[in-house]
Amino acid sequence: MRVCLYGLGSIGSATARALLADPDVRITGAIDVDPRKTGRGLHSLLRMRGSSDVEVTADPAATLASGPHDIVIHSTGSRLKQIVAQLEQILGAGFPCVTSCEEMAFPEAAAPGLARRLDRAARAKGVALLGAGVNPGFVMDALVLALSGATREVEHIAVERVLDPLSRRRVFQKKVGIGMTWKEANRLVSDGSMGHVGLRESAHLVARGMGWNITSVDEDVRVLCADEAPKPRSRRASHPDAPVTGLRQTLIARSGRTERIRMEMLMQAGVEGAHDAITINGHPGLNLWIQGGIPGDEATVSCLINAARHAVAPPRAGLLTVLDLPLRPSHFRSSGSSRSPADATAAG
Amino acid sequence: MRVCLYGLGSIGSATARALLADPDVRITGAIDVDPRKTGRGLHSLLRMRGSSDVEVTADPAATLASGPHDIVIHSTGSRLKQIVAQLEQILGAGFPCVTSCEEMAFPEAAAPGLARRLDRAARAKGVALLGAGVNPGFVMDALVLALSGATREVEHIAVERVLDPLSRRRVFQKKVGIGMTWKEANRLVSDGSMGHVGLRESAHLVARGMGWNITSVDEDVRVLCADEAPKPRSRRASHPDAPVTGLRQTLIARSGRTERIRMEMLMQAGVEGAHDAITINGHPGLNLWIQGGIPGDEATVSCLINAARHAVAPPRAGLLTVLDLPLRPSHFRSSGSSRSPADATAAG
Repeated sequence: MRVCLYGLGSIGSATARALLADPDVRITGAIDVDPRKTGRGLHSLLRMRGSSDVEVTADPAATLASGPHDIVIHSTGSRLKQIVAQLEQILGAGFPCVTSCEEMAFPEAAAPGLARRLDRAARAKGVALLGAGVNPGFVMDALVLALSGATREVEHIAVERVLDPLSRRRVFQKKVGIGMTWKEANRLVSDGSMGHVGLRESAHLVARGMGWNITSVDEDVRVLCADEAPKPRSRRASHPDAPVTGLRQTLIARSGRTERIRMEMLMQAGVEGAHDAITINGHPGLNLWIQGGIPGDEATVSCLINAARHAVAPPRAGLLTVLDLPLRPSHFRSSGSSRSPADATAAG
Repeated sequence: MRVCLYGLGSIGSATARALLADPDVRITGAIDVDPRKTGRGLHSLLRMRGSSDVEVTADPAATLASGPHDIVIHSTGSRLKQIVAQLEQILGAGFPCVTSCEEMAFPEAAAPGLARRLDRAARAKGVALLGAGVNPGFVMDALVLALSGATREVEHIAVERVLDPLSRRRVFQKKVGIGMTWKEANRLVSDGSMGHVGLRESAHLVARGMGWNITSVDEDVRVLCADEAPKPRSRRASHPDAPVTGLRQTLIARSGRTERIRMEMLMQAGVEGAHDAITINGHPGLNLWIQGGIPGDEATVSCLINAARHAVAPPRAGLLTVLDLPLRPSHFRSSGSSRSPADATAAG
């Protein structure tokens, strides 16, 4: 698989490291606008042994044109509006693309007009475009739907993810307000510029998978402070200058007056008992628990790479979601095929 | 969906009850050889309110011919050799079929010749045939592969299912030796006529999904007795007449000398901490836990019904496995479609 990387931030760099270690993959391009990165060789930038003739460039057009690439893995931002031109350039050059952009997990939620435009552009070139990652894209949506395969007459689905931002990279900590005062964090929350992006996308993916007609989606982001018991329904802090310890983010999706989906993320410094939990109210009822929670960044890299392999030979062209892919690692081949021992070694 | 039921044992009857309660489903035939069941109306047999014009018959040919049926849900036995003629009759009549027969989850393992014959028969009629259920078919295989979507470079997969047979139906208790002496149970284990059928099938499904070339599969069934600490590697009991409390069944699958898959089922009367657990050794490592374990019979009914809806419009004709189906409830429609509120109500 020949991969062009578009964006070498923390996710893009981690993806590059994983791909450089994979003998089945060749990196055929690396794009980033950061002047500290451009002009450098990829191995050197990533502080990896060995050398590659791939140089990081700030020129997407030239790098895309220098292909052939089998796929572009894109990782530059969370909001579709900020990155739509980049995706259009990739599609315009005729390449399939998997992006870590959270809103792209279900772009009809954030920007239905842009979603239609991207779908047309991908179809015009006969390639697939999709958003992937661990959240959104796996733990609060695809895994939920996988679990639902063993139940029926589902009435309600609840998903909870509890994590300690201190175990994550600095950029993530900043995203949940660590290092800010209560007042600063609340201003950013009001702007819509702080918090996890993706709950809404996950809820829409689950609703689509379940065949639910969702009529309302309510989201709430609450800033948490040190020495303060989290009170779900209050936004008052003891002091506007109190240091922020994280966020509690909740979403409720309803069909009419019936609550169908409840999602909650508690991202709090020092929180004990980090975990992911899925509860499906159906026949039978099902409870899934992942102790410690799925590690975010590392799993996002895996989800992106697995999705990339599927996107190279997609079920159809156009804008896809993870619901269109088999919930399986990329080295899955269709039933009836067999793999040689050499393949097995490479996969293992 | 018009469903013909073939086999009205505990799984078949529970499936019938679920289907009779579903307004989207009509039961168009019911077959069982038990003279206590034949000639009776389905509602009366299942002690359900209401009445149906469906009468249980012992004549598969006539009942199949009385269609049209969209699907036959078959549930008469665990071993392929015992039921292959029934499946051939169903396919011969031109109907797609989902069966709870455990060996049919991956029939190439138990009877590759029969698997090829069934594949040809299904292809000849352009219909799908597959085995489904919770185990094999979900918790120790499909769910494992779904989880693996968030990791890569997987080295090893371990799956454990711990359950208390006293919480299950009498037939299941007998299957694991409850009510027998150690000596009796060991004779049946040596015959291969006692124990859970399906570990081998699950291991093959996981290996296929992971792209692993499995060169050896070792299975061990150990009879457990009262007041005896389970010693995994010993078959000696304190007394041949000691009452059996259950079985510990293990499987190890290897690629060459590398252990790839370890599966263990502990089915022991009064066992505490029933659960299902999946551990994937990859990047990242993943641990999934289902407290209490997925309820076997109820989930098998759900798995059968979900698989039946997929098998009506399968990705291709022939012998399929659950790997060929989306890991999603049956009411999932492909991305881009939307559902009417009426649909949503029916699904809910």
